[in-house]
Amino acid sequence: MIAHLALFSHPNPKKVLVIGGGDGGVLREIIKHPGVESAILCDIDQSVINAAKKYLPNMAKSFDHPKVNVHIGDGFKFLESYKNHFDIIITDSSDPEGPAESLFQKPYFQLLNQSLTENGVITTQAESIWLHMKIIKDLKDACSQVFPNVRYAYTTIPTYPSGQIGFMVCTKNKSIDLSKPLRSFSKDDEKKLFRYYSKEIHEASFVLPNFAKVELE
Amino acid sequence: MIAHLALFSHPNPKKVLVIGGGDGGVLREIIKHPGVESAILCDIDQSVINAAKKYLPNMAKSFDHPKVNVHIGDGFKFLESYKNHFDIIITDSSDPEGPAESLFQKPYFQLLNQSLTENGVITTQAESIWLHMKIIKDLKDACSQVFPNVRYAYTTIPTYPSGQIGFMVCTKNKSIDLSKPLRSFSKDDEKKLFRYYSKEIHEASFVLPNFAKVELE
Repeated sequence: MIAHLALFSHPNPKKVLVIGGGDGGVLREIIKHPGVESAILCDIDQSVINAAKKYLPNMAKSFDHPKVNVHIGDGFKFLESYKNHFDIIITDSSDPEGPAESLFQKPYFQLLNQSLTENGVITTQAESIWLHMKIIKDLKDACSQVFPNVRYAYTTIPTYPSGQIGFMVCTKNKSIDLSKPLRSFSKDDEKKLFRYYSKEIHEASFVLPNFAKVELE
Repeated sequence: MIAHLALFSHPNPKKVLVIGGGDGGVLREIIKHPGVESAILCDIDQSVINAAKKYLPNMAKSFDHPKVNVHIGDGFKFLESYKNHFDIIITDSSDPEGPAESLFQKPYFQLLNQSLTENGVITTQAESIWLHMKIIKDLKDACSQVFPNVRYAYTTIPTYPSGQIGFMVCTKNKSIDLSKPLRSFSKDDEKKLFRYYSKEIHEASFVLPNFAKVELE
């Protein structure tokens, strides 16, 4: 979901960057979009990638795809050398404690913003409305100081605490409704390609329960 | 959600029955619909109700409402004496193992069907797509043998296994789309009355991930 919410919110994404995501799952989903020409993954830890290749081969199967390049290193440093370059940047991080904390703060989103092309879109891990409302509100505030169009979406995932995880979806494009995908695949292709995502799931993922809507919208 | 999915799928629900639901939470939600004239709760176990009144007073606050009557006894026997009577019957049961097993089988749905008025609607607890697909498919089959219009919906709830729970929604009315509520409250009233439910949440609760859609639709 973190990949498709971003990719379907861009009219024609060609250059995609993943920060984190060393398990390879996000890369695998990006590659399903035929228009993508290049997907770079920047993870700080080679051992995550090695472990995924060894123990989660289905998750990690796109590391060897010809469109994919892997860079091992710090995301902040990597971003500094790419200005106005990526159509999509997906941050697939851990929780905002310790090493990942800076990935939830304004300076990081300023860097992302500079690295994006016009109409660029980012998605980033954004915790659960049942457990982390304060983190989500702070994150939304930080994103809204940088991007003119910011929305929270969520998906169900039974292995995460509370059974769901959210995403902040941000774009430079003021005029679009992020809850409406700009592109879609045929229903047949959708079913072949995605076990979870569909155009309808994209739209539903932005529909918040009242208690969260009051806090976040 | 199990109450509102049923009540908003009926044009004018007046008589409502709850089978199970001894904690009182479903009753509390039913009473929020001003058109409801009578809500009967039939639970087999008085001690659940007593415990809810003592330890969950906010959940149990509608037991003393003038529209509410409580009957302690077996739901099957109770249903036999009410033919063509209820507009809505909500089954708020435990899992289909041991005592609640019969509440997931065709003879029970035949009884419910006989106790319903024209355009009557039932909802019943229907487990999680992440954990119980076989149970859900069997339940949908049983319901579809009795009702002409049967849909699966779900809601997120962090304290349940996998973080969500589903509902089977069935109606005698062939011609309606259960995912579109027949009535709705104003946005102001919705926010005052419901911490979770809204017209949009109702619609989104029927949007299944592809893997479940393939199995259930």
